[in-house]
Amino acid sequence: MNRTANDAGLPMVESRHIDRQAYPSGVAYMDGQYLPMSEAKISILDWGFLHSDATYDTVHVWNGRFFRLDLHLDRFFGSVEKLRMTLPFDRNQVAEILHNCTVLSGHRAAYVEMICTRGVSPTFSRDPRDAVNRFMAFAIPFGSVANKEQMQRGLNIAISDKVRIPPSSVDPAIKNYHWLDLVRGLFDGYDRNAETALLVDINGNVAEGPGFNVFAVKEGRLTTPASGVLPGITRRTVFDLCQRLGLSVAATDVSTAALREADEVFITSTAGGIMPVTTIDGGKVGDGRVGPVTTQLTELYWQMHEDPEWSTPVRYPARAG
Amino acid sequence: MNRTANDAGLPMVESRHIDRQAYPSGVAYMDGQYLPMSEAKISILDWGFLHSDATYDTVHVWNGRFFRLDLHLDRFFGSVEKLRMTLPFDRNQVAEILHNCTVLSGHRAAYVEMICTRGVSPTFSRDPRDAVNRFMAFAIPFGSVANKEQMQRGLNIAISDKVRIPPSSVDPAIKNYHWLDLVRGLFDGYDRNAETALLVDINGNVAEGPGFNVFAVKEGRLTTPASGVLPGITRRTVFDLCQRLGLSVAATDVSTAALREADEVFITSTAGGIMPVTTIDGGKVGDGRVGPVTTQLTELYWQMHEDPEWSTPVRYPARAG
Repeated sequence: MNRTANDAGLPMVESRHIDRQAYPSGVAYMDGQYLPMSEAKISILDWGFLHSDATYDTVHVWNGRFFRLDLHLDRFFGSVEKLRMTLPFDRNQVAEILHNCTVLSGHRAAYVEMICTRGVSPTFSRDPRDAVNRFMAFAIPFGSVANKEQMQRGLNIAISDKVRIPPSSVDPAIKNYHWLDLVRGLFDGYDRNAETALLVDINGNVAEGPGFNVFAVKEGRLTTPASGVLPGITRRTVFDLCQRLGLSVAATDVSTAALREADEVFITSTAGGIMPVTTIDGGKVGDGRVGPVTTQLTELYWQMHEDPEWSTPVRYPARAG
Repeated sequence: MNRTANDAGLPMVESRHIDRQAYPSGVAYMDGQYLPMSEAKISILDWGFLHSDATYDTVHVWNGRFFRLDLHLDRFFGSVEKLRMTLPFDRNQVAEILHNCTVLSGHRAAYVEMICTRGVSPTFSRDPRDAVNRFMAFAIPFGSVANKEQMQRGLNIAISDKVRIPPSSVDPAIKNYHWLDLVRGLFDGYDRNAETALLVDINGNVAEGPGFNVFAVKEGRLTTPASGVLPGITRRTVFDLCQRLGLSVAATDVSTAALREADEVFITSTAGGIMPVTTIDGGKVGDGRVGPVTTQLTELYWQMHEDPEWSTPVRYPARAG
């Protein structure tokens, strides 16, 4: 598995790592440097990897504008503080780095992530207080949970019996990378011929899925799980949109039965916005077609991406003549 | 925060990442290459980082011998299978890579870790089935939860009210990097002037701490939490040692009260072996000194490191004359 290069029959230690994996196009920021994505790497000794001791947030850029950047920055700085990490940058500096990554990537539809890891300590001490926290960010092409076809016909999802990691273990308001429950739930979904999955909370009510919150619409009223879920910014945006549209919406317990019996179901994520669900565990949601409330919210959601109240332009340089 | 290098006032994109962080001395294996630790890095896009979608195991080398390598390989291959990952190597090849990392590092007391991450897909698809799984390994100097002074006087620990991620969310038999509950529990411990911490399970009984299991000794009988904990190899070794010594040991519920009222308490980890605890939440355990059962087990534990039944020699090359 390696060329032999010395008398003892041992492989040689190379001076530089060569990685033949292809990565999406984009630009990252780490350690004071802007880098192509293929160069954006962290040590396998960083506690952000070895203990998933990290937090992050992801904002998207659509048609050259950041969407609700302030809310993402608020949540990110809140998560960093709760994990007792310190950032070497203030809010404006982080915003500038995100902006620079986006401009340098050239993407006008981008997925822009900011990360703070615990880092490592120079002595490799196991005490997290000794570690030097590390900030990084990157901009890559925008991605969505649902593809175009799924947006039109609605997603086919399964409800897994995997329990989303409870708030008594990990505060979901700290946006985190603890996804093994979600990944295993996703495999449960695939095993049942679904395209994605929802997990339940510790009481057996609906919680959330891999990277998204969920809403049910019944007789014109919207509900979404209240606790044990990431307070998603797209979820929050649905509350704001409902207020504008005069729709009733509440965060409460949502049973798996209530979800199956809803008139409409949709999921929400920065990665895709508002996305319809028309099949749950093999059964149709309502009449099995994307419903009018979902459609109305989705249209207003995308319209708001041009509204200066909720979006800020990326300052791309003028193109050379 | 970066030198400006073009007309638009934008920072320059560098072609290579420069990382000024110091890392411990050691050798890693990745992508067919043996590398110094400072070169062992993974993409920040690897799902092993972004979703902590990874599993691992850590074996130690003591006085030039691997300790219970077979048990660590068994657990690692079991974890990989449960996460539906595939390794490009069989058991003997993984053992050979661990051996090579250790020999090339030169360490005779080493902490040797094997890792499998979900990897990334060439299209950056969100579907974990599309990702190319990645194996890596490294050998760095041996580290311990307890330092020499703590081994002599016993650790001072606190019991946090943080709940260890329950098995209904993440199967603890899949050794994983989901440590935010443990890290936050550790900070609870520091806040109460303790040196480390134990978490409770969902029923309020004692679970485990950051990287270790726990045992109580009461009237000559040993108990350790039965469920919701990593089935540690050092924990298993204590069961084996008890059998040799004719001591009674059982995996069962251990209440926080039972732990506080124990005659002796110790923790177990590959990182340090069997380590005494003499203070819990500010109160003495027993008479506040390291007890005879803990001492007897610790001595036999280290003796067994020379026994060919439980250890295998690292084949270091002969030193040049």
